[in-house]
Amino acid sequence: MHPLPQLESYAIRTFEIDCNQQLTIPALVRLMQETAMQQVLELNISVWDLEQYSLAWVLIRKRIEIERLPMLGEKISIHSYPTGADRVFTYRDFRVYDEAGQQIATAATTWLLMNLQTRQMSRIPAELLARFSGYFPPVEMALPYALDSLPPMEQAFTSRNYVVGWYDLDFLKHLNNVHFVKWMLEALPEETLAKQQIRRMDLLFLAEGNLHDRIDAQFQQIDEATYLHQLVRQEDKKVLATGRTIWV
Amino acid sequence: MHPLPQLESYAIRTFEIDCNQQLTIPALVRLMQETAMQQVLELNISVWDLEQYSLAWVLIRKRIEIERLPMLGEKISIHSYPTGADRVFTYRDFRVYDEAGQQIATAATTWLLMNLQTRQMSRIPAELLARFSGYFPPVEMALPYALDSLPPMEQAFTSRNYVVGWYDLDFLKHLNNVHFVKWMLEALPEETLAKQQIRRMDLLFLAEGNLHDRIDAQFQQIDEATYLHQLVRQEDKKVLATGRTIWV
Repeated sequence: MHPLPQLESYAIRTFEIDCNQQLTIPALVRLMQETAMQQVLELNISVWDLEQYSLAWVLIRKRIEIERLPMLGEKISIHSYPTGADRVFTYRDFRVYDEAGQQIATAATTWLLMNLQTRQMSRIPAELLARFSGYFPPVEMALPYALDSLPPMEQAFTSRNYVVGWYDLDFLKHLNNVHFVKWMLEALPEETLAKQQIRRMDLLFLAEGNLHDRIDAQFQQIDEATYLHQLVRQEDKKVLATGRTIWV
Repeated sequence: MHPLPQLESYAIRTFEIDCNQQLTIPALVRLMQETAMQQVLELNISVWDLEQYSLAWVLIRKRIEIERLPMLGEKISIHSYPTGADRVFTYRDFRVYDEAGQQIATAATTWLLMNLQTRQMSRIPAELLARFSGYFPPVEMALPYALDSLPPMEQAFTSRNYVVGWYDLDFLKHLNNVHFVKWMLEALPEETLAKQQIRRMDLLFLAEGNLHDRIDAQFQQIDEATYLHQLVRQEDKKVLATGRTIWV
């Protein structure tokens, strides 16, 4: 089977940068997600194609590694492709290249299919799997699967809280994945956000956020370079997501 | 002088839509702002060009009128151009067209120049004015200037509050204009946001928001179709912005 036309190009826009004119992490994650969405629309496996099966893709794990972040106006290409599927999980990689063709960031993601009626995991119907399994690259081309867990947070410090708003929702009316990233990072000290560079971010998505949920953004500093993160719903103390970031 | 190459084209992305697959108002405002930013970069009158004069553009008034909002994947063109300047104000219009060339939305905006040292309004240096005054269209082509005030809010109901976060800031480290729009609208009932269509939004920007500011989003319903809005900083009760929306 021929490879997918899986490259999307983006020029970094003025609303995607911080005060250093550098692409922000939430904006990077948004562009990655957009690239994958365009591809699943093309493959007819998007959320709207899955409606008739009462199924939805759920992102459960993401590992982002960053060499450098592009600057305002810079053109980047994002390459995204499914890399495998097993009994439970489906895997998708992202590779970000600059104009010189240098890889500047990657992400490995892990997904499952949820049955929207039973709220249980579902195996991938053969008919759906057939729409993308032919595109899996050779195993040595894929990033290592993101499956590992994260160390528990021992001393959670709540630094900010949020109430999920209408425009924080995605098209399924769940708290958008990009906001998990934004809210985890924003909890950190300004010094870190303004002056340090993020090298790696690990995310575990555990539950959906819904409109009006009150969410505490907590973190714990492990060492000079490492933070643990979690987002906890106030009402039922449910941990919606955990994370770890590594900075230089 | 020749007209500016002032059209930017955008395909509506998956993170720009709501559960009805329709472009959201904050995302529309962001695309308009991006179009203007690309043009001022080209004209050498951007925030970074103004640094040497210790000046910055400040948006003080915006009137948005919407015929219809584009859908996921739809291609739109945004046309933006300066339409005039007087002793104090500079004016800029936006026109949004669909693929058939139909105008589907407009915005008229009013700006002033602030001296960053004195925090006072400044007249436009002739040298800067010369970079864009040749592009003003004939007066009958411009939208009516947005200069009118808004009725006062008599019974403010605070429905949400926010703490300004790192990623809510623009590249000058002020609360991004798009968040003023987002936060005003999110204060409204879910029914309105999900089921009604916005036809017009008026905004008055009165003061900057800064990192960690605590902000109350207030509204008052005037009649079935009309709301007044304001964003108030808790600490000093300063009104950062007021607004009015009209819905069908």
